[in-house]
Amino acid sequence: MTGDLDSAAMDLIEFSPTFEEYAFTFGGAAPIRKVKPGTALKLWSDDAFGGALRSNTDLSSEKVDLRYVNPQTGPFYVEGAEPGDALAIHFVDLEPARDWGASAAIPFFGGLTGTGVTATLQDALPDMTWIYHLDRAARTVAFEARHSNHRIELPLEPMLGTVGVAPAGGEVRSSLVPERFGGNMDTPEMRAGTTCFLGVNVEGALFSVGDGHYRQGEGEACGTAVEGAMTTTLIVELVKGAAPAWPRLENDDHWITVGSSRPLEDAWRVAQVEMVRWFGELYGFDRMDAYQLLSQIVKAPIANVVDANYTSVIKAPKALLPAADAFGGMHRELRGRAAELNGS
Amino acid sequence: MTGDLDSAAMDLIEFSPTFEEYAFTFGGAAPIRKVKPGTALKLWSDDAFGGALRSNTDLSSEKVDLRYVNPQTGPFYVEGAEPGDALAIHFVDLEPARDWGASAAIPFFGGLTGTGVTATLQDALPDMTWIYHLDRAARTVAFEARHSNHRIELPLEPMLGTVGVAPAGGEVRSSLVPERFGGNMDTPEMRAGTTCFLGVNVEGALFSVGDGHYRQGEGEACGTAVEGAMTTTLIVELVKGAAPAWPRLENDDHWITVGSSRPLEDAWRVAQVEMVRWFGELYGFDRMDAYQLLSQIVKAPIANVVDANYTSVIKAPKALLPAADAFGGMHRELRGRAAELNGS
Amino acid sequence: MTGDLDSAAMDLIEFSPTFEEYAFTFGGAAPIRKVKPGTALKLWSDDAFGGALRSNTDLSSEKVDLRYVNPQTGPFYVEGAEPGDALAIHFVDLEPARDWGASAAIPFFGGLTGTGVTATLQDALPDMTWIYHLDRAARTVAFEARHSNHRIELPLEPMLGTVGVAPAGGEVRSSLVPERFGGNMDTPEMRAGTTCFLGVNVEGALFSVGDGHYRQGEGEACGTAVEGAMTTTLIVELVKGAAPAWPRLENDDHWITVGSSRPLEDAWRVAQVEMVRWFGELYGFDRMDAYQLLSQIVKAPIANVVDANYTSVIKAPKALLPAADAFGGMHRELRGRAAELNGS
Amino acid sequence: MTGDLDSAAMDLIEFSPTFEEYAFTFGGAAPIRKVKPGTALKLWSDDAFGGALRSNTDLSSEKVDLRYVNPQTGPFYVEGAEPGDALAIHFVDLEPARDWGASAAIPFFGGLTGTGVTATLQDALPDMTWIYHLDRAARTVAFEARHSNHRIELPLEPMLGTVGVAPAGGEVRSSLVPERFGGNMDTPEMRAGTTCFLGVNVEGALFSVGDGHYRQGEGEACGTAVEGAMTTTLIVELVKGAAPAWPRLENDDHWITVGSSRPLEDAWRVAQVEMVRWFGELYGFDRMDAYQLLSQIVKAPIANVVDANYTSVIKAPKALLPAADAFGGMHRELRGRAAELNGS
Repeated sequence: MTGDLDSAAMDLIEFSPTFEEYAFTFGGAAPIRKVKPGTALKLWSDDAFGGALRSNTDLSSEKVDLRYVNPQTGPFYVEGAEPGDALAIHFVDLEPARDWGASAAIPFFGGLTGTGVTATLQDALPDMTWIYHLDRAARTVAFEARHSNHRIELPLEPMLGTVGVAPAGGEVRSSLVPERFGGNMDTPEMRAGTTCFLGVNVEGALFSVGDGHYRQGEGEACGTAVEGAMTTTLIVELVKGAAPAWPRLENDDHWITVGSSRPLEDAWRVAQVEMVRWFGELYGFDRMDAYQLLSQIVKAPIANVVDANYTSVIKAPKALLPAADAFGGMHRELRGRAAELNGS
Repeated sequence: MTGDLDSAAMDLIEFSPTFEEYAFTFGGAAPIRKVKPGTALKLWSDDAFGGALRSNTDLSSEKVDLRYVNPQTGPFYVEGAEPGDALAIHFVDLEPARDWGASAAIPFFGGLTGTGVTATLQDALPDMTWIYHLDRAARTVAFEARHSNHRIELPLEPMLGTVGVAPAGGEVRSSLVPERFGGNMDTPEMRAGTTCFLGVNVEGALFSVGDGHYRQGEGEACGTAVEGAMTTTLIVELVKGAAPAWPRLENDDHWITVGSSRPLEDAWRVAQVEMVRWFGELYGFDRMDAYQLLSQIVKAPIANVVDANYTSVIKAPKALLPAADAFGGMHRELRGRAAELNGS
Repeated sequence: MTGDLDSAAMDLIEFSPTFEEYAFTFGGAAPIRKVKPGTALKLWSDDAFGGALRSNTDLSSEKVDLRYVNPQTGPFYVEGAEPGDALAIHFVDLEPARDWGASAAIPFFGGLTGTGVTATLQDALPDMTWIYHLDRAARTVAFEARHSNHRIELPLEPMLGTVGVAPAGGEVRSSLVPERFGGNMDTPEMRAGTTCFLGVNVEGALFSVGDGHYRQGEGEACGTAVEGAMTTTLIVELVKGAAPAWPRLENDDHWITVGSSRPLEDAWRVAQVEMVRWFGELYGFDRMDAYQLLSQIVKAPIANVVDANYTSVIKAPKALLPAADAFGGMHRELRGRAAELNGS
Repeated sequence: MTGDLDSAAMDLIEFSPTFEEYAFTFGGAAPIRKVKPGTALKLWSDDAFGGALRSNTDLSSEKVDLRYVNPQTGPFYVEGAEPGDALAIHFVDLEPARDWGASAAIPFFGGLTGTGVTATLQDALPDMTWIYHLDRAARTVAFEARHSNHRIELPLEPMLGTVGVAPAGGEVRSSLVPERFGGNMDTPEMRAGTTCFLGVNVEGALFSVGDGHYRQGEGEACGTAVEGAMTTTLIVELVKGAAPAWPRLENDDHWITVGSSRPLEDAWRVAQVEMVRWFGELYGFDRMDAYQLLSQIVKAPIANVVDANYTSVIKAPKALLPAADAFGGMHRELRGRAAELNGS
C-alpha cells in the first residue's frame, strides 16, 4: 500500500524533554521546537507529579513540589500559525510510557474536600497515594485498595489531561488551568482518534501536551487520575482563520465542545452555547432550532470538578445527524494520515 | 413457562387519572389509591404541559398555566411503608401514549437564558413550540426545524422526568422540583429496566410519576424534552429500614446515584459522596479507597441544568466490579418479575 | 398627647404560643388567629433551638431535634388578604425575651464546613455551643470564648431571622428556607423601624415570625446567630394588588430588596434586578438608567450563606435620591402609628 | 511643625505614564521604576477605558479596545521585596485627575446580563455610555439619566479598582482579574486611609495601581463604576516574612479580608476563613471561637459580581474588639507618615 510512502513524506519528530525543558505554564515559555503544519510528533511526557510518586509510601505532601506539577512537553511553535487560526491536533496514538501509574488524595485538593477557594475550617482528608500496575498484554491497570484486600483490574484507556496553546492578552496560566486556550481540561475524550481544535492567540500558537492518564473517571473526583508518563503520537495542522472561541473536539462519532469555568453550570453553559453556534455553522440551523434539537440529543459528561476551572463537555452524536464537515474536513483528513502513520 | 402463573398472582392495577385527579406537588395531595408492596401498576400520565401544546402555533405563554405543569399520576399509598424504609420502583415498560410529543422554549425558562433567579435585564428568547411526530414502527420521533427545512428522525428513548415520594419535614414541593425525595430529576436513566430506590418520609410513601419524555438530551438544555403522555408499567416494592439519603438507581449495568442542588457542583458532590457511601455498603470499601476507585471509573452525565435544583448523576459500571447486591437483591428480583409480566 | 387615643383605637393583640401552637413551616399550618389589617401584635417567639441550648454543655447534636427548629409564631390569617396583594409588616419593637442567647456550631451545618449538599468526605467540625449573657442596662450581650479567656461585650442589635407568608403553588416549606415568600432570610435589616413587604400567595396571607437574633454578623457564617427568644411588636397592613415578586423592605434610610437562591450570585442577581424594577416604579427610570445609577450607589451586604437558599440584600440610600413613596406611602404611615404605639 | 522635615526626608516620586508605559497585566511587564520601602509615590492613572469614552455618544463597542483596558500605572520594583514578604501600600490621598468620569453598559459584560461564561442565547443589552461631571467644590459627581430628565448629584468617594502584585507560579494575569495577588478587586474599601497588604510572589513584588473610580456601588452591578483618571498618593512599605495568603486591608475602623473566586460563595468562604485565621494571629483565638465571634460581628459587603473572579469582603469592626496590631503596627505607622505628608 502507498501509505508508507506518504507517511515517509510526513515530517516525524520524536522528542523527550529533559527536566529543564519542561514548561509549567501555557504561555510564557520559549518554544522548544519549531514545526511545520502537517508534522507528526512522537512525544514523551512525564506524569502530573513529575514521576515523584513511585510507591504507596510516597506522599504528595512530601514528594511533590506543587509549583512543578503537570509538566508540559512543549511548547511547540507552529510555523505560520497566527491569531485567528485554528490549530488542529490529531491524536494518533497514546501509549503508557511506564508500567505503573500513580494517583493521590492531595490535602485540600479534589472535589470532595474543602480547598483553597471552597475554603472551610475542617481538617484535611488523609494524604494518601495509590500505585496502579499495568498489564500491557491484558491492557489493564490494577487498583489496589489501601484499607482492604480489594484488587480490581481496570481497562487501560489512555488520555491526556492537558492540551493547550498560549492564552490571549499576554496572559500566562499554570498548567493546572483549563480555559479558552484548552489546558488542563481533564476530559477522557482527549484520546487516540480525536482531533482537538484550539484558537490560536499568538504567533506560532505555542502548543504543549502533558498530564497523561492511563484512565480517568468523569469528574476526576479526587483530583488525580491514574497519572502516568505517556508516549503521544500526534499530527499538528492549521486551519487558517477558523479559530473557535473555545476548544472543539471531533472524533468519528461525535462533535464535542468543551467549556471551563466556575460554577459548573457556567462551564456547561459555555459548552452548550458553543455547540448551538457550531450547529449553526455545520448545518445552517437557526439558534432556536439548534437549541431545541441539541436539548434532545446531546450527551453532557462532566470532565473535571477539581481544577482551577471546572470543565463540562457536550457531545452531539453524528449518527443522528446529516453528514457535515467542520474545519474543512480536517478530522477526516487527519484520520487518513494517522492510518498511514500506523501503517495500516 | 410458569411465569404466567406468577404474574397472574401479581396484583396488576391500571389507572388513568382524570384532570381533577392529578397532583401537582410531592406531598400535600391525598392518595388516589392504596397499593400493596409487590403491586404492578399500569399508569397513564399526561405530558408536562397537560397536553396543551398540540401544534407549533400553540405558545406556552398562551396555552400553558404554569401553576399546572408536570401533572403527577398519583400519589399512591404503599401499605406498610414507613419513614426509614426504601421504596423500590421498577420500571417494566414505558410506552408513548400519544403519537406526538411537544417541546417548547418557554420565556425565561431553560438553561441558556436568564431566568427568575439567574435574573438578568435582557429580553426573553422567542416563545416557540416544536411538535415531534412518532413513528411507532421505526421507533422514532421526528424533529422538524422551525426556521429551515431540516427534518431529523431521532430514536424513541422513553423515560420519566419525575418519580418521587412525599418530602420529609412536612414539606410540599412543586412537581417541578428535584430533591432528596426524587421528583423532577429529568435523567434519561429513568427508563424501562431501571429500579429507583427512594427513602420513605411519610407513612405510605405517597409516590407519584409523570413528565414522560419520548427522548431527552443530557442537561435538558432548553428546559423541556420531547414531552409526551406515557403509559408506564412499574412494580412497586418496599425494603424495610433501608432508606437511602438521596435517590439511588440500579439497572443491569450500573449503580447510579442522583444529586440535586445548586450550584451544579453541589449536585455533583451529593451524587459522588453518595456513591462513596454506597461503595462502603456494597463492597466494604474504606471511604478513601472508594473515593479513589470511583475517581477512575465513574460516568458523570448531567441530568438537568434547568429545574429548581440542578441534577447530576454518577454511574459506576458493574462490569468492572465484583458482584454485589444492593437492597437485598431487589433489582434482580424485580427484573425477574418484570420478565414474567412481559410474558417472557 | 393624642397618640394614646389612636393607639387605643388600634387593635392590639398579645400572643405567646404553647409548644403545640408553633408552626415549623411556611404554608401547611392552620392559622392560630385571624387579624384585621391595621392590627398591632405583640408576639413571643422562642429561639431557633426551641430553647434547648441553655449551657455550653448542651450540644446541638444531643439536645436539638432538627425537625423542630426555627419555631414560628403564627401563622396569622389577615382578613381580606388575597393573592396579588402586598402584606406590610412593620416592626415597632424587638425586645429580648430572655437574659441569655445561644449560638452553636452544628455538625455539617454552616458556611465554613461541608454540608448535606456541599458534600465532602471530611470529618465534621466540633459540635460546640456558646451562651451569651445579656446586660439589659448596657444593652450588650457577652461573647465568652471556649478555648481562651476572651470575653467581649457586643451591642444588642435585635432582629428577626424569619418573616414569611405561605408560598405559592401549594408549596409548604421548612421554616429554615428563605425564598420569594420571605422566610429564613437572616438579614440584620429585619429590625425595629423596618417595614417588610411580602407578596400574598394564599387567602389570608398566613404570615408568621420567629428566629429572633440578639445580634448577627452579615453572612451568619457559622449558621447560627445569637439566637434568642423575642418579644416582637409589629403592625400588619395590606396594600391591595401591590404584591412584590420578592421581599422588599423599607426603613427611613433605605429602599431594600432581598434575593434568595443558590449560588450566591443568583441571590444577588435577584435582589439587584428587583431594585432596578423598583426604581422604575418609584422614579420612572428606564431599566438601563436604573441599572447604571444603582451600580454607583447601592450597598450589597450578604445576609446568609448557610441556609437552604443563600440571601443577598441590596440597599439604595434614600438620602441620595429624590423623595418618593412606595406602596402608597405605607412605611411612613406605619412609622407614625408605631410612634403612637410607643407613646411618643 | 516638624512634619515638613520628616516628609522632606521621605522619598517622594511623582510619575505619570505615557501610553507605552502602561501595563495591562499583573506580572509579565518590566518594572518602570525601582523604589525603596518607605517611598511615597504620587501616581497618575488613566481610567479603565484609557480615556476613550468622553461623551454619551462614545460607545464602548466602537471606542474601547478590550485588550487594553484597566491600564496599570506600574509595575514598581520594591527593593528588598522577596517571596514571603508582605507588601504594604498605604493610600494617603486619591484625587480625581479629570473633571468627568465615564461609565458604560458594555455588551455581554456586567452582572445583570449573560456574559462570555454565563453564556446564554439572548441578545445583548443596549451598548450605552454615561458621562458624570465633577463638582470639585461640592465634592460631587452628577448622574444624568439617558432616557429621562433625572439628574442626581452623588458624593465623590474616590477609590481604586485595581491594586496588585505579580502572581505566583510565573503566571501573568489580565488587569481585569482579582485573585490572591490582589488585582481588580473593585472594592470601595480601597480608598484614602486604607493600608493594603499583599503577599509578595516575585523579587521586587512588582506592584501596580489603576482603575480609579470616582465612586462605585457595592457589586459594581453593570460592570463599570464612575471610571476616572486618578492622582494617587501612596506610601509603599515592606513587612519581611509576613505574606498573607490573600489580600488584607486595614483602616482605622476595620480589619478587612478580601476573597476572589467563583461562585460568589467561594469568594465569601475565602474572605471569611482568612478572617478566622487573622483573628487567630491577632488575638490568639482558637479557630472555633474565631468562627463563632466573627459570625456575630462582621460586615460582609460584596465588592464585585462582574469580574473574572467575583470578590467578597469581610470587615471586622475594631471598636468591638481589644486593641491589637497587625503586621507589626504598620498601618498606624503609615497613618502617621501620611499625616506628615499631608502637612498636618
